Amino acid sequence: MEDRPTRVPAARNGWLKPITQAILERRATVAFTDDAVPDDVLGAILQLGLQAPSGYNLQPWRFIVVRDPANRARLQSVANDQAKVSQAPIVVIAVGMREAWRAEMDEVFLEGLKRGLVKRPADVTRGQEAATRFLDGMSRDVWVNRHTMIAVTYMMLVAEAYGYDTAPMEGFDAEGVKREFGIPDDAEVVALLGIGRARPPDKPYPGRFPVDRMVYAESFGTPWSERSRA
Amino acid sequence: MEDRPTRVPAARNGWLKPITQAILERRATVAFTDDAVPDDVLGAILQLGLQAPSGYNLQPWRFIVVRDPANRARLQSVANDQAKVSQAPIVVIAVGMREAWRAEMDEVFLEGLKRGLVKRPADVTRGQEAATRFLDGMSRDVWVNRHTMIAVTYMMLVAEAYGYDTAPMEGFDAEGVKREFGIPDDAEVVALLGIGRARPPDKPYPGRFPVDRMVYAESFGTPWSERSRA
Repeated sequence: MEDRPTRVPAARNGWLKPITQAILERRATVAFTDDAVPDDVLGAILQLGLQAPSGYNLQPWRFIVVRDPANRARLQSVANDQAKVSQAPIVVIAVGMREAWRAEMDEVFLEGLKRGLVKRPADVTRGQEAATRFLDGMSRDVWVNRHTMIAVTYMMLVAEAYGYDTAPMEGFDAEGVKREFGIPDDAEVVALLGIGRARPPDKPYPGRFPVDRMVYAESFGTPWSERSRA
Repeated sequence: MEDRPTRVPAARNGWLKPITQAILERRATVAFTDDAVPDDVLGAILQLGLQAPSGYNLQPWRFIVVRDPANRARLQSVANDQAKVSQAPIVVIAVGMREAWRAEMDEVFLEGLKRGLVKRPADVTRGQEAATRFLDGMSRDVWVNRHTMIAVTYMMLVAEAYGYDTAPMEGFDAEGVKREFGIPDDAEVVALLGIGRARPPDKPYPGRFPVDRMVYAESFGTPWSERSRA
């Protein structure tokens, strides 16, 4: 396996949007311009996306970068015919792998031994048994969706921080996307992420439910501010 | 609904970690110190977490902030007895709501009309019908997990940017967590997120699969660099 990427630009033209600002300014892009995304930006988005954490470091994801115009048009045809799919210079198809961990687990755990995460070969065996029990005991669909969305979120925020815009999309025909892009049966299409430059105007900010309705203190249903004021 | 939060600290003591650095330095915390997380930091983590995007802006999530030591101990007892659960000064229980959107949809769409996302009342009706068709046609478990993980990832990266450490956890007895914290049946426990300060040493970096194995160009299975070099 590889170490952390070392060639990720810390800033572009001396500039990187702070995460607080990136979160507040990010909007789901409605329409993209023709502006290309430079290779160093795309490389950083992908490399940093792959730094997302995963249970037991199993990394149960794959990402297909679609840039060819004919392929973007094909993708649009299986994504509710949304124009932004073929407008965006890049669309990433984020895929969760339900079963790849079985074949990749040895590699992951032996790498952990090599890097000192565990000390003894017996720990590798024990870790693999625990991981197998855990994964066999849960919905693999849920598991791959959880993990893959962490990486998609990394990519979305990194793009925004470098000054690019994104459109995360959940409206697609998963079977159609799999057929058109050669995705195997045991994989799940989790999301599409368009990346490029938004064509103004942004759509208005839609509002958010108040913190007190979405955040509870200590138990479900207790509004956050009531308890935190106490 | 509410506008964007305006009191989120842009930096603390003149300092905020760039997102590139936050992603590269973040590790899943193994053990926490007793250091508290200041209220302004926690407030920013929560408020920015709630800015996560969601399909139709339905925001299908809730977050329970557990700080009381007795409650953290109770949470530990239903989270594989992991010591870090009661060590972390804060553990957020991230919950996905499978059915809340039915009752909240009117509010979301009328807010969209008020804010100019759609122009006419007929668009509200059409939007609600489309959202209902979409949601009735998909696994609600998958849907809430995808969305809630975006918000959890926001919280994790914001905490890191302010200089705090986190531990995302998937090892818990979901039914036990629901029982202990009054979480209703139609909700799904998606993740736990411990927030605090890591007790050194960090565990070693576990490595990542190479970009060429995880990223494909144009179709599943074509290593990224082959096509991108062409």
